[in-house]
Amino acid sequence: MLKNIKSCISPDLVKILMEMGHGDEIVLADGNFPAASHTKRLVRLDGNETPEILEGILHLMPLDTYVEYPVSLMMHGVEVSRPSIWQVYEEIVRNEENHFKAQYLERFDFYERAKSAYAIVATSEKALYANIILKKGVVTE
Amino acid sequence: MLKNIKSCISPDLVKILMEMGHGDEIVLADGNFPAASHTKRLVRLDGNETPEILEGILHLMPLDTYVEYPVSLMMHGVEVSRPSIWQVYEEIVRNEENHFKAQYLERFDFYERAKSAYAIVATSEKALYANIILKKGVVTE
Amino acid sequence: MLKNIKSCISPDLVKILMEMGHGDEIVLADGNFPAASHTKRLVRLDGNETPEILEGILHLMPLDTYVEYPVSLMMHGVEVSRPSIWQVYEEIVRNEENHFKAQYLERFDFYERAKSAYAIVATSEKALYANIILKKGVVTE
Amino acid sequence: MLKNIKSCISPDLVKILMEMGHGDEIVLADGNFPAASHTKRLVRLDGNETPEILEGILHLMPLDTYVEYPVSLMMHGVEVSRPSIWQVYEEIVRNEENHFKAQYLERFDFYERAKSAYAIVATSEKALYANIILKKGVVTE
Amino acid sequence: MLKNIKSCISPDLVKILMEMGHGDEIVLADGNFPAASHTKRLVRLDGNETPEILEGILHLMPLDTYVEYPVSLMMHGVEVSRPSIWQVYEEIVRNEENHFKAQYLERFDFYERAKSAYAIVATSEKALYANIILKKGVVTE
Amino acid sequence: MLKNIKSCISPDLVKILMEMGHGDEIVLADGNFPAASHTKRLVRLDGNETPEILEGILHLMPLDTYVEYPVSLMMHGVEVSRPSIWQVYEEIVRNEENHFKAQYLERFDFYERAKSAYAIVATSEKALYANIILKKGVVTE
Amino acid sequence: MLKNIKSCISPDLVKILMEMGHGDEIVLADGNFPAASHTKRLVRLDGNETPEILEGILHLMPLDTYVEYPVSLMMHGVEVSRPSIWQVYEEIVRNEENHFKAQYLERFDFYERAKSAYAIVATSEKALYANIILKKGVVTE
Amino acid sequence: MLKNIKSCISPDLVKILMEMGHGDEIVLADGNFPAASHTKRLVRLDGNETPEILEGILHLMPLDTYVEYPVSLMMHGVEVSRPSIWQVYEEIVRNEENHFKAQYLERFDFYERAKSAYAIVATSEKALYANIILKKGVVTE
Amino acid sequence: MLKNIKSCISPDLVKILMEMGHGDEIVLADGNFPAASHTKRLVRLDGNETPEILEGILHLMPLDTYVEYPVSLMMHGVEVSRPSIWQVYEEIVRNEENHFKAQYLERFDFYERAKSAYAIVATSEKALYANIILKKGVVTE
Amino acid sequence: MLKNIKSCISPDLVKILMEMGHGDEIVLADGNFPAASHTKRLVRLDGNETPEILEGILHLMPLDTYVEYPVSLMMHGVEVSRPSIWQVYEEIVRNEENHFKAQYLERFDFYERAKSAYAIVATSEKALYANIILKKGVVTE
Repeated sequence: MLKNIKSCISPDLVKILMEMGHGDEIVLADGNFPAASHTKRLVRLDGNETPEILEGILHLMPLDTYVEYPVSLMMHGVEVSRPSIWQVYEEIVRNEENHFKAQYLERFDFYERAKSAYAIVATSEKALYANIILKKGVVTE
Repeated sequence: MLKNIKSCISPDLVKILMEMGHGDEIVLADGNFPAASHTKRLVRLDGNETPEILEGILHLMPLDTYVEYPVSLMMHGVEVSRPSIWQVYEEIVRNEENHFKAQYLERFDFYERAKSAYAIVATSEKALYANIILKKGVVTE
Repeated sequence: MLKNIKSCISPDLVKILMEMGHGDEIVLADGNFPAASHTKRLVRLDGNETPEILEGILHLMPLDTYVEYPVSLMMHGVEVSRPSIWQVYEEIVRNEENHFKAQYLERFDFYERAKSAYAIVATSEKALYANIILKKGVVTE
Repeated sequence: MLKNIKSCISPDLVKILMEMGHGDEIVLADGNFPAASHTKRLVRLDGNETPEILEGILHLMPLDTYVEYPVSLMMHGVEVSRPSIWQVYEEIVRNEENHFKAQYLERFDFYERAKSAYAIVATSEKALYANIILKKGVVTE
Repeated sequence: MLKNIKSCISPDLVKILMEMGHGDEIVLADGNFPAASHTKRLVRLDGNETPEILEGILHLMPLDTYVEYPVSLMMHGVEVSRPSIWQVYEEIVRNEENHFKAQYLERFDFYERAKSAYAIVATSEKALYANIILKKGVVTE
Repeated sequence: MLKNIKSCISPDLVKILMEMGHGDEIVLADGNFPAASHTKRLVRLDGNETPEILEGILHLMPLDTYVEYPVSLMMHGVEVSRPSIWQVYEEIVRNEENHFKAQYLERFDFYERAKSAYAIVATSEKALYANIILKKGVVTE
Repeated sequence: MLKNIKSCISPDLVKILMEMGHGDEIVLADGNFPAASHTKRLVRLDGNETPEILEGILHLMPLDTYVEYPVSLMMHGVEVSRPSIWQVYEEIVRNEENHFKAQYLERFDFYERAKSAYAIVATSEKALYANIILKKGVVTE
Repeated sequence: MLKNIKSCISPDLVKILMEMGHGDEIVLADGNFPAASHTKRLVRLDGNETPEILEGILHLMPLDTYVEYPVSLMMHGVEVSRPSIWQVYEEIVRNEENHFKAQYLERFDFYERAKSAYAIVATSEKALYANIILKKGVVTE
Repeated sequence: MLKNIKSCISPDLVKILMEMGHGDEIVLADGNFPAASHTKRLVRLDGNETPEILEGILHLMPLDTYVEYPVSLMMHGVEVSRPSIWQVYEEIVRNEENHFKAQYLERFDFYERAKSAYAIVATSEKALYANIILKKGVVTE
Repeated sequence: MLKNIKSCISPDLVKILMEMGHGDEIVLADGNFPAASHTKRLVRLDGNETPEILEGILHLMPLDTYVEYPVSLMMHGVEVSRPSIWQVYEEIVRNEENHFKAQYLERFDFYERAKSAYAIVATSEKALYANIILKKGVVTE
C-alpha cells in the first residue's frame, strides 16, 4: 500500500497504468466477462466492484480529451431503462473530469475493442451492463 | 467465478488451497504486512478485507484437528483489550469448525512462521492485529 | 483436495474454470482425442472417465442460457443407435441444469471448434463418441 | 495413451519413471499428503486411487533388489490392525516382484524421506495409511 | 530405462507418443534432414538408426486404421530400384500391424507434411530415402 | 506517467514500493554503488539524481515510526565536514515526515544491510556519501 | 557507469545500440507516447528528457548517410510555429553529424513507423512534438 | 575449446551447425549488418573477421551439392572491381570444396534471404561486400 | 551432423565439451545410473553404448595431464575378475592418449564425485561397472 | 558496433561493465580456464585474445584506486622467468592508468576469487599465465 493510492489498485495495475500512453485503453470487466480469453495482459481484482476501481484509476489517470468519446460502454439486448451502474460511473467520471462522454458498443463490437486494449481488469462486479473501457489522456505535471 | 465459491477467492488462491495438504499452513496478512519479502508463493487480494476471505477459505478448507492450535495470531506490544477483529475471526471459525483454538506468537516469531508457510495472502485489511495463520486439516469426501 | 469439490477436478482445472467467463468453452476429450495438438491450454486428467468430470464441473460451473445449444457433441460416421454415453451425459446435465440442449458437429468441425475453446481436458475415457464441449454461463451469487 | 501402459500413468509420470535410475525413489501420496510442499518434482494424478497406479508403475519399473526394503510405508499412531490397503499393496507387489519387503517409517521420518525422493505422485487415494515409497531397481532388457 | 520399452526410446519421446492422439503424426528423420527448422517439437536421438526406433515406437503406438495410408515415405529423384531400407520398414510394420500401406511424397511435399506433424525425431540414420511419417491410430486397452 | 507521481518514479519502482510492507527497506544507491551484485531486485534509474527520487518516494511511502532510525546513511573514511547532500536529504525527509532520524553505517556494514533490503534503486547520483536506506512505515488510508 | 558514456544512457540502451545495424531505427518517445503498446523492445528512461539522451546516443551512434532523411519527426495538428524542441534537436544533431535532414510524419504514420523500429526509448520528456526517430548509419573504426 | 575446432567457432555456433540439415542456410554478416533484427537465432562473434570463421565452418560443414549455387553474396551499388574479400572467400571455399559457385543478390533480396536462414553469425568484419550465405550439404561419415 | 564428429555426439554434448575447461569433469553413466538426480546438466544419449561415445569424446577432448588419474572408474562389491568393458575403455583411451591411468572409487564416492562434475551423459550402456569419469585437459591448437 | 568502443567488446560485455560498481571484479580467462563452472555470469568472446579485450575494457572502465592491488594475476608452478604476456598487460594498464599494481594468487586461490567475481570473460587466449582479474574503480564524469 502507498499514500494516495486506493487499496483496491494493485501493484500490477499501477504499473500498467503508468506504462500506458496517450490513446491506450483499459477495460474494467465485470465478474462474468471472458477476460482471460480476450487479452494478453490481465489484471485480476477478485472480490472488488468496479466503481471503487474506476475511482481509484481516475484519481491517477486522466481521460483522453483529443477524442469525442473517452469512455465506452457495452449495450446489451433491449433495455428498458438506463442501468443504474451507468449513473454511478457518470458521477465518478464527472467528479474527476468534469464531463462524461460515452459511446455505446454492441456486445461483440465491445469484445473486439477489448481485445485490442492495453489491458483488461477482471473485477467481481455483479451489476448488469457494468463493462467499461477508458482511454488514457495526456499527463501534464 | 464459480458456483459456491466466494468472489473474493481468486483462481490462484483456490489452486493453492487445493495443492495444500494436511499440515500445510496459509497466512492471511494485513495490508501492511511485508508479505512479498516473506514468501515465495504470494497471492495478492488487494482491496479485500480479511474476514470475508477467511470465510471463503473455511467454506472450502477444513482446519487441522490433529494439532492443539490450528489457528495462530500475532501478538503485538502491550495490549489493553482483545482486538475486535479477533472476535470476528472467532465467530467465522466457530461457524465452520465449531471450536476456535488459537495460539499467540510474538511479532518476529510470527514472521518466521509465515516464512515457512505454504503461501501468504496479501489483503488490504486495515484492522490492527489482523494477521492470522491457518493450518489445513484432512479432507474427507 | 477441498470440501465440495470432487477429487477428479484438479487444481489447474478449477483455476481454469474460474478464469473462464460467459461464453468461453471447455472441451472434455476422450483418451484418443488429439488434445495436445488442438489447444494451448491443456489439462490432463489421465485415468479418469468423462462422466465424473462432467459432474464435477457442472457442480461448479453453470451452462450458458443465452445460446440455443450450450452443449456440443461429436457426430461420427454412420451411427446405428444413439451412443449410451450420451444418455449418461444427458442425465448428468439435466440433474444440474434441468434441460439438455445439444448440437452435433461433424468430426472436423468439432476439431476446429475445440481449437478455439478456452481449454481442453484430456481424459482417459474409452467410450465412443464421448467428446463433449460445454459453454459457460453467467454466475450469479 | 499407448499400448501396454495403463491409462492412469500420465505422460509426465512415464517420463519421470524413465529418468529415474537405480536407487532413486518415488512416493505415491494419498489425497491429503502435503505433496507440493515436500518435493520439487510433483506429478498430480487427481481422481485416481493408489492401487491402480502402483500396478501401472510396477508393470514398467522393477524394485531395487540390492536393498533389504525396496518399499516404505508410513506408520501412524496406535494401530489396532494392519490397514487393509497394505494387503492390497502387498498383493500387487508380489504379483510383479514375487516378494514384498517393506519397512515402516514414523510420520515425520516418512516426510523427510519423501523430500529426498526423486518425485511425488499426488493421488486422490482416501484410504488411511496409504502413502508408499518405491525404490527403483536395475532394468535389464 | 523401463521394462518393455526399448532403450533407444527416450523419456521425451515416450512422453510425446503418449500426448499424441488419433490422427497426429510423427516424423522419423534421417541424419541429414533439416529437422530443427521444420518443427517446434524436436526429439534428437543422435547415434541411433531409424529401424530400431521404428520398432520401439510401433511396440507402443498403433497406426491409424481410419485412413488409407498411415505411413508416408519420401520419394527422391529418379530411382532405379526400391530402397532396401523400405523393405526393412515394411517388415517391421507388418510385424506389428499385419499390413503395410504407404504413400509416397515428393521431397517438398514431404517437408510441408513434416512441418504440420506433431513432432520430428532426428535420428543419425545414414541410409538414403529413410525419412518416414507415421500416423497414430486409436488405442484400445 | 500518472497524476501525482513524479516522472522519475518508474512503473517498476512504484510496483516495488507497493509490494513492500512495514519494516521492508529500500536502498537509493549512487552511480558507483555495486548495486547489481548486492540485490536480486534491482531498479535502474539511470540519468537521475537521488534527491528528486527521494522526494518522489516519500510523497508515496511513509517511513517507519516504530524504530529509532528509519534512515541509514553510509559513513566513509575520515570526514572533515558533514556532506552537503545529507543536508538536502534531511530537508526532503523533514518536509514529509517532520523529523529526520538517521543512523550511520560503516561501508561494509552498509553493503551487508543493502543485501538484505527488499530492493536497490541504482541512480546516477555523483555526490559523495549519497547512499541512503529507507525503512517503510505503516500506511493508513 | 563507464568513461565516455553519458549517465543517462542505461546498460540496456547501450546494448541495444550496439546490436542495431545499418538501417535499423530507434525511437525517442516523449512521456505520453504509447511506447509499451508499440514495441517489443522497450527501454524506459523515466525522469530523463530527450535532448540529453539524443546527445548521449549520437556520441556513440552515427546516423545513416545512405538515405535522404536519417531523422523523422512527428507532425501534429495545425502548427503555428516550429516547436522549439526541434531547434534543440537540430543543434545536437548538427554538432555530431554536420547536417540535419529530417522528414515529417503524420501522427498515425509515425506510430506505424515506430512499431517497426528496433526499439523505443520511453523518456519523461514533456515538450510537445518531441518524438523523434533515428536511423543508424555505418560504423567505421 | 576442443581439438580440431578453430577457437573462433563458439560452442553455440557448433551446436547450431550440427542442428542444421541438408538445405538449411547460415549467414555470415559483417559488423554493420542489421543481424539482430533479421533473425531469431543469432550468434555473435564480436572481434572476429569473416574469413577465419568461414574457414572454421567449412572445416566442419559441407556445402550443398544438390543446388547450383551453395554460396550467396550481396551485391551493392555500382561496383568498379570485384571486392578483394570475395577472392579470399573463393580461395577458402575452393580449399575445402574444390569449386566455388556463387550467386549475387541485391541488398534487399539478400536481407529477405537472411531472414529465412537458420541462423545469422554477427562478425566484426569491416571489409565491404563481405556478407555471405552458405547452404549446408549432406554429411556422409 | 558435421564432418569429423561421430554421429552419437549430440549438439548439446559438443557444446558442453567446448564449454568445459581445464580440470572440469564429465561422467559417462550407464543406463541404470541415477543421472537426473545427480546433476543439473544432463545430456541423454538414449540407445547408445558408452564405448562409441568415449571414442567420440576423446577424438575431440584431451585428458588432463596435470593430475595422476584423469580417469575414474566405479568399483562395485566383490569382483572376481576385471570387467571386460574396462579393457575396452583402456584400449580406446590408449588409442588417443597413449597411456591409461585410472583410479577406482567406491560406489557412493563415485556418486559424490559425479554430483560435482560439469555434466553427466546418460547412455543406455548395459555392461556392469561401465560408469566412467573423464577430466578435461589443456587444448593447444 | 558503436563509435569509440572496440569491436571485440560485445554488447553483453558493455552492459556488464556498466552494471558493475565500485569494487566489483571481472575475470579475463584464457581459453582453457574452466569459466562456465566458476561463474553464473559468463561472457564468451571466442576467437579473441586477452590483450585487445583488456585494452578495450580499460578504455571504458577505470581501475580501483582505493585498494593496493586493483589487478590480480595467477601464479602457476615453478616459473623460470616472468611471462611475456604480463609485460603486455603491464603496458596496456600503464597506458590507461599510469601505474600497474598487481598481486599474485595461487591457482586455487585464483579460482575461488574468480567464483566471487561479478563476471568471467572467456577468451581464446593461448598464452600461459594469461588469466587476469580487474577491480572496477570510481567513474567520475
